[in-house]
Amino acid sequence: MAKRPNGLPDASIWQLEEKPLPIIEEGEALIQTEYISMDPAMRGWIRDAKSYLPPVKIGDVMRAAIIGKVIASKNPNIKVGDYYTGLSSVQQYLVTDGEGMYNVDANLAPLPTYLSVLGMPGFTAYFGLLKIGQPKQGETVLVSGAAGAVGSTVGQIAKIKGCHVVGVAGGKEKCDYIVNELGFDGAIDYKNEDIKERLNELCPNGIDIYYDNVGGNILNTALTHINRKARIVICGAISQYNKKPEGPSNYYLLLASRAKMEGFVVIDYTKDYPSASMQMGQWMMEGKLKSKEFTVEGIENFHDAFLRLFSGKKLGKLVLKVNS
Amino acid sequence: MAKRPNGLPDASIWQLEEKPLPIIEEGEALIQTEYISMDPAMRGWIRDAKSYLPPVKIGDVMRAAIIGKVIASKNPNIKVGDYYTGLSSVQQYLVTDGEGMYNVDANLAPLPTYLSVLGMPGFTAYFGLLKIGQPKQGETVLVSGAAGAVGSTVGQIAKIKGCHVVGVAGGKEKCDYIVNELGFDGAIDYKNEDIKERLNELCPNGIDIYYDNVGGNILNTALTHINRKARIVICGAISQYNKKPEGPSNYYLLLASRAKMEGFVVIDYTKDYPSASMQMGQWMMEGKLKSKEFTVEGIENFHDAFLRLFSGKKLGKLVLKVNS
Repeated sequence: MAKRPNGLPDASIWQLEEKPLPIIEEGEALIQTEYISMDPAMRGWIRDAKSYLPPVKIGDVMRAAIIGKVIASKNPNIKVGDYYTGLSSVQQYLVTDGEGMYNVDANLAPLPTYLSVLGMPGFTAYFGLLKIGQPKQGETVLVSGAAGAVGSTVGQIAKIKGCHVVGVAGGKEKCDYIVNELGFDGAIDYKNEDIKERLNELCPNGIDIYYDNVGGNILNTALTHINRKARIVICGAISQYNKKPEGPSNYYLLLASRAKMEGFVVIDYTKDYPSASMQMGQWMMEGKLKSKEFTVEGIENFHDAFLRLFSGKKLGKLVLKVNS
Repeated sequence: MAKRPNGLPDASIWQLEEKPLPIIEEGEALIQTEYISMDPAMRGWIRDAKSYLPPVKIGDVMRAAIIGKVIASKNPNIKVGDYYTGLSSVQQYLVTDGEGMYNVDANLAPLPTYLSVLGMPGFTAYFGLLKIGQPKQGETVLVSGAAGAVGSTVGQIAKIKGCHVVGVAGGKEKCDYIVNELGFDGAIDYKNEDIKERLNELCPNGIDIYYDNVGGNILNTALTHINRKARIVICGAISQYNKKPEGPSNYYLLLASRAKMEGFVVIDYTKDYPSASMQMGQWMMEGKLKSKEFTVEGIENFHDAFLRLFSGKKLGKLVLKVNS
């Protein structure tokens, strides 16, 4: 990262640097990155503000979750040929002592799935919905960013839990995808439909859980439909990241509904990742949970991929394939 | 109520009507009102919107909590000379069958106290702070509208629970009152001081509970100081009642702080009023909890009293004394 962005980042905030491959020391291993996870959270990481992780510093390599293959090792616990995933940075090769990296079985699922349903977005959906949202059978769950990595997983888990599930997404293709391929009960195309009117149609019994990835007008309109004791899970606010943010003027409806709006950060659940992973792997094998990725190729196209997070020009989990 | 208000209500929305005293039937009693409780919630009750109570209809007598004396009774359970309080309406006399009215002992506390600390504002403070806020010893509690009936009680209960307590109020007199007479640890005069700067000074360890009665800029600034797992209790938003409401643009800080913002309505705790009342009466007798009222005289001055809710021209609980 060469400088801090102001508003929607332009390509000049990044700089691609080439350096010779490092020599690994005793206890280290060299991983060749195969896929880089492109996440909305990245926009927060490059903001100069206190948050759940320290901001990326100017001159640092950009932070990212990655998956890659061990190509050299001087660490007896890390085997050449194995695949590892973890929160690292946007680079073709990385040196690790294993700290914060997890070994995954490349035969069980395609590599990008470990950055999607079986990775941080999947855990974010799983813990945010189950721990903060606490869905009960028959409740109505609304989720925004519903065709994205987190939103599509939230909706599918809510269906597994017996909820009536409605997703908000941008454009007919995404709306068709979540209803026809993922089994959502309904979809609202926020780019072409009146959200309030569609909520009346699709959530006739009101909203018990709203899992919010976008903020702005969708959050504000969802607030007008919440039920008593509703839970609004604040997971993201992608519509607000590149501008002066707006607050939800209808927040006050929390009062009459005895409802709450609660934030969470997935890294608090790290110790429960293995059990979540097993549960979601199980659901995937049973065909109840699907993962879809949208791949941009070439580390030199990082900025193009990054912008798709905000333009929405992708379907499912956005990953950057690093060609060697 | 003669018509619905738009923005800050003017006197023309009310109409004072005189009618002959009703004849009571078997099972009924006639109560002469002594004090009418003037509460910010009244502004919500005259709005034409679904809420926790149905809106007052045009042509209806305005809703209010009152305290009065039984002057005639054909109900064996309601004795002439006894005092009753409950949610009723703005009138000098009322007929009741006892439903929703509670007998109080006029010898134990002054009558207006039953509309203040020992009434709905007291219960609102008690249950909002203890059930939603869940204060723990040593935590920092910020409360807005801190010199008002609810806010002053919240702050005093938080002190009893061992918290560091800071209040936000308008003007030096109110700020001096909550610190010098009620024992708050600090006060912020939002009319004359920089809220952010004062929060830095007075809440050096951040905010664990923010009990919000006002909304607007104070809520938005408080959000910048919340600690991890902070609880924001949404009790009111008096700064927003007479205008197009603003949302708190910093709501998103709930995420990194894993914090929540939760609404509640005191009438959900009706069955626990007696135990709360006993506890607060006990604290009053021990000198740990004080009640202060500001009295406007004459039912014909109802509108003047009503406006003081929004102008803040009062200190403590605002009551209207009904002269017979």
